[in-house]
Amino acid sequence: MTAPVVLIVGAGDYIGAAIARRFARGGYTVCMGRRNGDKLGPLVEEIRAEGGIAHGFTLDARDEDNVTEVFRQVEDAHGPIEVMIFNVGGNVRFPILETTSRVFRKVWEMACFAGFLSGREAARYMVPRGRGCILFTGATASVKGSAGFAAFAAGKHGLRALAQSMARELGRKNIHVAHLVIDAGVDTAFVRERIAQAGSDPGSLPPDTLMRPESVAETYWMLAHQPRDAWTFELDLRPYGETW
Amino acid sequence: MTAPVVLIVGAGDYIGAAIARRFARGGYTVCMGRRNGDKLGPLVEEIRAEGGIAHGFTLDARDEDNVTEVFRQVEDAHGPIEVMIFNVGGNVRFPILETTSRVFRKVWEMACFAGFLSGREAARYMVPRGRGCILFTGATASVKGSAGFAAFAAGKHGLRALAQSMARELGRKNIHVAHLVIDAGVDTAFVRERIAQAGSDPGSLPPDTLMRPESVAETYWMLAHQPRDAWTFELDLRPYGETW
Amino acid sequence: MTAPVVLIVGAGDYIGAAIARRFARGGYTVCMGRRNGDKLGPLVEEIRAEGGIAHGFTLDARDEDNVTEVFRQVEDAHGPIEVMIFNVGGNVRFPILETTSRVFRKVWEMACFAGFLSGREAARYMVPRGRGCILFTGATASVKGSAGFAAFAAGKHGLRALAQSMARELGRKNIHVAHLVIDAGVDTAFVRERIAQAGSDPGSLPPDTLMRPESVAETYWMLAHQPRDAWTFELDLRPYGETW
Amino acid sequence: MTAPVVLIVGAGDYIGAAIARRFARGGYTVCMGRRNGDKLGPLVEEIRAEGGIAHGFTLDARDEDNVTEVFRQVEDAHGPIEVMIFNVGGNVRFPILETTSRVFRKVWEMACFAGFLSGREAARYMVPRGRGCILFTGATASVKGSAGFAAFAAGKHGLRALAQSMARELGRKNIHVAHLVIDAGVDTAFVRERIAQAGSDPGSLPPDTLMRPESVAETYWMLAHQPRDAWTFELDLRPYGETW
Repeated sequence: MTAPVVLIVGAGDYIGAAIARRFARGGYTVCMGRRNGDKLGPLVEEIRAEGGIAHGFTLDARDEDNVTEVFRQVEDAHGPIEVMIFNVGGNVRFPILETTSRVFRKVWEMACFAGFLSGREAARYMVPRGRGCILFTGATASVKGSAGFAAFAAGKHGLRALAQSMARELGRKNIHVAHLVIDAGVDTAFVRERIAQAGSDPGSLPPDTLMRPESVAETYWMLAHQPRDAWTFELDLRPYGETW
Repeated sequence: MTAPVVLIVGAGDYIGAAIARRFARGGYTVCMGRRNGDKLGPLVEEIRAEGGIAHGFTLDARDEDNVTEVFRQVEDAHGPIEVMIFNVGGNVRFPILETTSRVFRKVWEMACFAGFLSGREAARYMVPRGRGCILFTGATASVKGSAGFAAFAAGKHGLRALAQSMARELGRKNIHVAHLVIDAGVDTAFVRERIAQAGSDPGSLPPDTLMRPESVAETYWMLAHQPRDAWTFELDLRPYGETW
Repeated sequence: MTAPVVLIVGAGDYIGAAIARRFARGGYTVCMGRRNGDKLGPLVEEIRAEGGIAHGFTLDARDEDNVTEVFRQVEDAHGPIEVMIFNVGGNVRFPILETTSRVFRKVWEMACFAGFLSGREAARYMVPRGRGCILFTGATASVKGSAGFAAFAAGKHGLRALAQSMARELGRKNIHVAHLVIDAGVDTAFVRERIAQAGSDPGSLPPDTLMRPESVAETYWMLAHQPRDAWTFELDLRPYGETW
Repeated sequence: MTAPVVLIVGAGDYIGAAIARRFARGGYTVCMGRRNGDKLGPLVEEIRAEGGIAHGFTLDARDEDNVTEVFRQVEDAHGPIEVMIFNVGGNVRFPILETTSRVFRKVWEMACFAGFLSGREAARYMVPRGRGCILFTGATASVKGSAGFAAFAAGKHGLRALAQSMARELGRKNIHVAHLVIDAGVDTAFVRERIAQAGSDPGSLPPDTLMRPESVAETYWMLAHQPRDAWTFELDLRPYGETW
C-alpha cells in the first residue's frame, strides 16, 4: 500500500500499455481502465510476472457513475491516486457532409467529455490532499483543424481547453496538469495497416520513422516527476523525420 | 424572393439583433431563430416597419430535427440561404470541482454541437450550389483556457476547431467559413449588470469602453461580403481601451 | 490641408499602390515612400489625374534619419498623419547553411527594424494627438517558421511581436495598431514568374486563385476605419482555393 | 577526448551554469562561452574539482568571426559538438516611445542574431555528421508581445521562428532542434532584486515560487537525450504557483 498509485484511463494496447509498464517499473501501483477490462488480463499478468503491481478495471470513461465508482475502488483498495493519465482516443475522419450527429457526439464524448469526467474526478481526490498530477493525451488535431477532421478536432481542441483551464486553476493548489501533443504516428498495428493501405510497405520504413510507445511513455513519466518549481503544461512529440 | 437570405441562428437581443438589422438594411431577407421565437416578434416588426424583410423562427439549435426543419422552411419559403451566422452563446463560469457533468454537456451542446448542426446544415445547401458564407461567433475562451472556464473554453475551442476544419474543407468549394474572436464585453444589460456587481458604475464608463452591437454587426457584414480572392478566416474584436 | 493623411512606407507596385489608390479615392492625402522615389512618379500622376492628392518620397525605411526626416516633411507639408501603413517586404528563401549573416541581417532590417522605426515614428506624432492608426503587413512566415525560411520568418515574427506589443500599449491611447497575415500569393509579376518557373502556366490559373491587390487594399481601408469600440488586432487573408 | 561535447553559448551565473554542471555530471566535456570568459574561471574550477571536464571561452555571440573561431577551437581541441545550447538573454523593458533604435538593434543582436550565428555554426558541424542537438532558450516574450516589451518580444519571437525553421529543416537530417519557453522567473539575484524593488520580501516567498536553475537545467538534459523517434520541439516551464 505504500507504492504510489497511477490510474491510466484508456489503457490501450500501445501507448497506454507502455505507460503502464513504465510506471510499474518505476515502483507504482498501476491501475488501468478500458472499456473491456478483460483485455487487460495479459498486461496485468506480464507486469506482475516482472514483480510489478497492476490491476485492471472495466471502465467506460464516458459514464459518470462508472468513472466515480472506479476511482473510488482504486482509492479504497490501492491508495491515493498520485497520477491520473487520460489516454482515450477517438480519431475518425469524415468529410463534414458525411459527419453524422451521432459521430460528432460520440467523438466528443470519448475525446473530451470522458476527459472532463476523469480529470474532475482526479481533482476531487487531489485537491484536498494538495498534490497530484493529471496528464492528457493530445494530438495534432488538438491544435489545428483540418479538412475531414471537424469531429475529431472539435473533441481534441475541447480536451486541450479543459486541460489548460484546469492547469491554470489547479497549479497553485499543487496539482500539475499537462497536455501532450502527439503529432505523428505511433507504431501500432493500426498505423501500419494504414500505411499499407496507402500503398507503402510498413516493413521497409526507415528506423525510427514511427514513434515507439516506450519513448512516448518515457515522456509521461518525465512530466509526472517534474519538480514543482518547473512544471511543463504542454509539449509536442514527433519522430525526427516527420514533416510538420 | 430575389433578396438574398441570411439565417441567424441564435438571434439574441444584442449582437444577433444588430446583425439582423444590418443585413436587413443591406437588402437581405433576414431569417432568425432563437429558442423562444415569440421573443423575435418586436424585432421582426421593427425591421418590417423600416421596409425590411424579416422572419422569426422558434429554433432549438441543439435539436437536429429542429435545425433540419427550420433550414428547410427557410429555403422553401424564402430562398437559398446565402449567409448563415451561428451566434449561440453559453458563457458560464464554475470552478472545475463545481462543474457538473450536466453543465459541461449543456455548454458543449450550445457552444459546439449546435454550431456543428447549423454549420453542416448550411453546407448541405451551399455545397451543391457552389457558394455561401458561414460565420461563427467566438470568444476569448475560443483561444485560451482559464481558471473557472473549463466548460465554456472546451465548448468554444471545439467550435473554433469545427470552423477551421470546415474552412479548410469548403474553401475550395467556394464556401467562405470564418470565425470571429469577440475578445471583450459587448454592451448588453447582462454585462452592465456584471460591472455593477463588481462594484463599478456602468453609467460612468468612459465612452466606447464596451463594444456596441452595431460595430460588431458591421464586421459580420464585412466578412460576408469579402471577394473570394481575399477571404479572412479569423479576426479578433475588442474595444480600444481593453487590456489583453 | 483638411484631407486626412495616410503615409505608406513601402509603396511597391502592387499592394502598396493599391492601398494608395484606395485611400486617395477615399479622400486622403496619400504620401508614399519607397527606396527609389522616382518610381512613384507614374502612380502619383495617375492618382492626381483622377482628382486625388498624392506625394512621393524617397525613403530607405531602414535608415533612422531618413525615416525621421520624411515623417517630418509629411507632417509639416501635408498635415497630421492619421494612418501609417508599413508594407515593406523582404521574402527570401535559403537553406540554413546557405543563409549568410548579411542576408539574415538585411532581411531583419527590412522586415522588422524598418517596421520599428516607422511604427515608433508614427506613434511619436499620434500619441500626443491621442488618435491614429498603424497597420503592419505580415505573411505566413509571421506565424510559422518553415524549412528554408529561417531569415524571413525571424524578421516577420519580430514584426508581429512589435505590432502586438504596440497594440497592447497604445490601444488605451486611442491608437489602433493592427497586423494583417497575408497568407497566400498576391497577383504580381513576381508571383506569376515563380508559378511559371514551377512549371505551371499562370495564364491558365482558375479565376481568383491569386489575391488581387485591390481586394487586399480594401482590407487595409476597413481596418483603418473601424470604430474604436470594436478594433481588430489581427486577421488573415487568402484566396478561396488556397490549401492551408 | 571520448566524452561527448556540449557547447553552452551564454553561460551565465544561473541557468547557464546549472546546465554546465548537469552536463558535466552526465559525462560531457563542457565548453562554455560568455562575453567575459574570465568570469567562467570559478565555475570551470568547481566542475574540475568534482571530477568533471570544463573549458571556458571568451565569446561575443553577436560577432560572426568570434563565433566561428570558438566553435572551431572547441571542435579541434575537444571533439565534435554533440549539443549546442544557446542561452543568451537580453530582457529589457521600455515604452515604445522610449525605445531607441540602438536598444532595439542591440536586443535583437543578442536575442536573435547571436542565436542564428550559433545555431547555424552548430549545424555546419552537425549536418555532415548526421547527428546533433541544438537547444534555444525562450521566454514568455517568445510567444506574446506586451506593452513595454516591443524590443525584447521582437528579438525573442525572431529566435523562436529561427528555431522552428531549423527544426523543420534539420529534423530529417537527424539534428534535434528544440525551444524552451521559460515562462516565469528563475531564482537569480536579479529577479530577487526586482521582487524587492516591487515592495515584496524575496526572503519570504513561499517555497518553489521561483524556478531553480537546476530544475531548468534538468529539462535541457532531458531534451538533449530524447530518442529520435520521439522528439519535442517546444515546451514551457513555470513554477506551480504561477498565474499565466
